[in-house]
Amino acid sequence: MDAALPIVRTVPDLRRRLDAWRAEGQRIGLVPTMGALHEGHLSLIAQARARADRVIASLFVNPTQFAPGEDFEAYPRSEAQDAALLAGAGCDLLFAPTPDQIYPPGFSTTITVSGVSAPLEGENRPSHFSGVATVVAKLLIQARPDVAVFGEKDYQQLQVIKRLARDLDLPTRIIGAPTVRAPDGLALSSRNAYLTPPEREIAANLNRVLLNLARVLAQGEPVAAAEAEAAEALMSAGFDVLEYVQARHAEDLSRLGPGPIGAAPARVLAAVRLGKTRLIDNRAV
Amino acid sequence: MDAALPIVRTVPDLRRRLDAWRAEGQRIGLVPTMGALHEGHLSLIAQARARADRVIASLFVNPTQFAPGEDFEAYPRSEAQDAALLAGAGCDLLFAPTPDQIYPPGFSTTITVSGVSAPLEGENRPSHFSGVATVVAKLLIQARPDVAVFGEKDYQQLQVIKRLARDLDLPTRIIGAPTVRAPDGLALSSRNAYLTPPEREIAANLNRVLLNLARVLAQGEPVAAAEAEAAEALMSAGFDVLEYVQARHAEDLSRLGPGPIGAAPARVLAAVRLGKTRLIDNRAV
Repeated sequence: MDAALPIVRTVPDLRRRLDAWRAEGQRIGLVPTMGALHEGHLSLIAQARARADRVIASLFVNPTQFAPGEDFEAYPRSEAQDAALLAGAGCDLLFAPTPDQIYPPGFSTTITVSGVSAPLEGENRPSHFSGVATVVAKLLIQARPDVAVFGEKDYQQLQVIKRLARDLDLPTRIIGAPTVRAPDGLALSSRNAYLTPPEREIAANLNRVLLNLARVLAQGEPVAAAEAEAAEALMSAGFDVLEYVQARHAEDLSRLGPGPIGAAPARVLAAVRLGKTRLIDNRAV
Repeated sequence: MDAALPIVRTVPDLRRRLDAWRAEGQRIGLVPTMGALHEGHLSLIAQARARADRVIASLFVNPTQFAPGEDFEAYPRSEAQDAALLAGAGCDLLFAPTPDQIYPPGFSTTITVSGVSAPLEGENRPSHFSGVATVVAKLLIQARPDVAVFGEKDYQQLQVIKRLARDLDLPTRIIGAPTVRAPDGLALSSRNAYLTPPEREIAANLNRVLLNLARVLAQGEPVAAAEAEAAEALMSAGFDVLEYVQARHAEDLSRLGPGPIGAAPARVLAAVRLGKTRLIDNRAV
């Protein structure tokens, strides 16, 4: 049995702990989460452990990154179980702030990252990325870690955060960690818990279609044709709504195509809806 | 003759210097400026000296806080003279970054502070305060000073920056320093250099009208009537355009009135145009 994980709930308490570690010369790694932890999150803790002497996780279900009508209220919350999983994975400290530590009375500040946050998720989830950028900037300023690890599952978010950290001179290295997948290829996600058994079977096709799209693009198939085939394949597989399936520049997420992708580093990304669940995934080309 | 002031032009050089001071336990004060220094700025250096062991000034004429059509190109630039004045005032280091240290290629991030930045200057200078908030957040993150000093001359800016620092958990105490005035009461400003001699005489009435407005409000005159009299007095004094003259809540700059101000902490603020020059000033009630 793992020892209980220390939990701090205020910024002053967090900074006191971290300052003590820094005074000992220890490098600090941060893994921001919204809880409902699974193997994907625990792999981020492992990535942080490999790059830092002390690892902290944060747990805050951030209301401002849910658009109106999304699942903020329903989002799964399980702090005690999350803390036990983190302790087992080698996490040293959990920062689970009370809401007023993130949004004090009169809070009025919003951070937006233009460009990379505009397409894809930016089009389909209004205000999502300004919610993400604002809360992540706050966590990075509150904790001032040497490294922070984010999953490639939320690939566009990762690029937004890399841009944010560069633009604001945050002294934290942003690390992207590979997506952890179920045996059939479905990317692990807290929202997979919403899927019914038949939906869960359909869901595995999201990864398969993206892998195939990446393969045919690498073979030189024109972008426009390959995207159209992938869209057709997703709808045939039984997804209810296709929000997007596209090839994009891997770093700034600018549009590619319509011809062959050539030498540009590329990423294929998709978002679909299945019943009441929204799923996203992506693959390197 | 004062020794030459050390100047650094990159963020890594700045952080190297400051980290060395911090390692010695020295408290750091920052005075952000756009150069064209006068006695008002030097009083900010003195305020920082009183609260810190080492004082740095920054000099960056920030293009994003000038609205289209404003005086960014014409803004006075005099780095060598500024450096000599700073050295004489007891400043230890000048951070005069090259533009790419503030806005690197691909820069995409904007910080906005709603509420306090909306009225007054916010209405009359579109995008001004998001330019200010973004560059000030960057400077505070780059330098991580213990205190930063801003003039009360730009009173609304000071309140925006206080809100910004609180909201982003920046570990810097924001200090407001009293406005330095010419013998006739005109607030010192780099833009006073634009005034012709006859305009310079008219300009002194801005302070006089604000002092009188603060006095009659303190005596219980209703806000609406007192503001109307002040507006009349400014136009009679010879200003060409009155942008605003208002009483506001001293902290969040929310509207007061139309009756007597009562016990709320209040500030009176005005902006006028005189020839090609825009002047602002404010007074406590």
